[in-house]
Amino acid sequence: MPMGEALPETSGAPELATLAWAPAFARGYVKDLRVRWALEEAGRPYRTAPQDHLVRDGAYRAWQPFGQVPAWREGPVEMFESAAIVLHLAAQSERLSPQDPAGAARTTSWVLAAVATVQPQVDVANSIASDLPEPARAACLARLASRLAALEAWLAGRDWLEGRFTAGDLMMAAVIREVNPGTLQAYPRLTGWLARCLDRPAFEAALAAQLADLAE
Amino acid sequence: MPMGEALPETSGAPELATLAWAPAFARGYVKDLRVRWALEEAGRPYRTAPQDHLVRDGAYRAWQPFGQVPAWREGPVEMFESAAIVLHLAAQSERLSPQDPAGAARTTSWVLAAVATVQPQVDVANSIASDLPEPARAACLARLASRLAALEAWLAGRDWLEGRFTAGDLMMAAVIREVNPGTLQAYPRLTGWLARCLDRPAFEAALAAQLADLAE
Repeated sequence: MPMGEALPETSGAPELATLAWAPAFARGYVKDLRVRWALEEAGRPYRTAPQDHLVRDGAYRAWQPFGQVPAWREGPVEMFESAAIVLHLAAQSERLSPQDPAGAARTTSWVLAAVATVQPQVDVANSIASDLPEPARAACLARLASRLAALEAWLAGRDWLEGRFTAGDLMMAAVIREVNPGTLQAYPRLTGWLARCLDRPAFEAALAAQLADLAE
Repeated sequence: MPMGEALPETSGAPELATLAWAPAFARGYVKDLRVRWALEEAGRPYRTAPQDHLVRDGAYRAWQPFGQVPAWREGPVEMFESAAIVLHLAAQSERLSPQDPAGAARTTSWVLAAVATVQPQVDVANSIASDLPEPARAACLARLASRLAALEAWLAGRDWLEGRFTAGDLMMAAVIREVNPGTLQAYPRLTGWLARCLDRPAFEAALAAQLADLAE
């Protein structure tokens, strides 16, 4: 079974809720990409369940209470939030995380750092900051810069966040690729690490699958 | 051994990094509170490791790469990010989460929704929004309102997010208690659910422990 293909519904088969449509600027950045990437790394086939806007505001909220994508179903497991789904998959695959308690805890820490500590600062810099007067605007950009500097320092002597590629690198790379390239170029280790992450065949396959599904 | 007491260092004993000092407005809101609450719910003793500002900018970054609190150590497990630590503890305690895969997946989903989908909107509303001109300010408040409305709808007919109290309620309540009370009062089910969460003896014990540690 090819990965990422829209397949007829089968009870209990893994199913990923995606967008039925997205504006051009969002293609390649919709957050089901993160789960697709994890599934590709783990070598797991999946079926997409594309949701249109009206469904997301209605019945879909029984599956995803905020009307967002992605969401995930597999047998009795029904869940939402891209990072939650990636953690769930990581707990089942050595390719996504060491399975011993200490190694798994490192993966979990980095996945959470990506979405709770870094993503909000990236989002503010990319959206709200341009509407802010000084010095509030500069303060927002400084908060993002402090996160990027912390990652730059951490990556000294490291190819990956924890000795090997994990779901922590995956989620952090998915966040860092949204940083303005002009901002990112001040961080050479982070730039090199991001390139290593995005060069992975699993990322390329996930990106191609999302772009194909959203092509008009 | 009383919970939350500063104890002499013992190799491998559970250890929670906290702040050595915080300004008055932050006391009761520093994010180690979330882990303290989880530890109290699980009935697990812990030792605090208070970090001062200079340490957090220096050697502490080997434990917490961003210099934030909390961080957690227990035997070979060394981790950071409050939500990551709470998830780690939840995987070990029925009191924090059902332990079957489907139930655990629900807990994980709500913990991530709290910190990745709701917290950023609360933070923007509480800090940046007042500096924004209209209509950008109204748009930020509308994004928070959409999250609160989603929770209000979800809580129809539910006492807890998932049939019973879990770490998902814990993390979401820790976020929602930071919402401006004037904003929150438009959501009666959410207000009632928050009161149920904060009335729990484990929350009260965790809050008292943080306040005692930060008292001058």
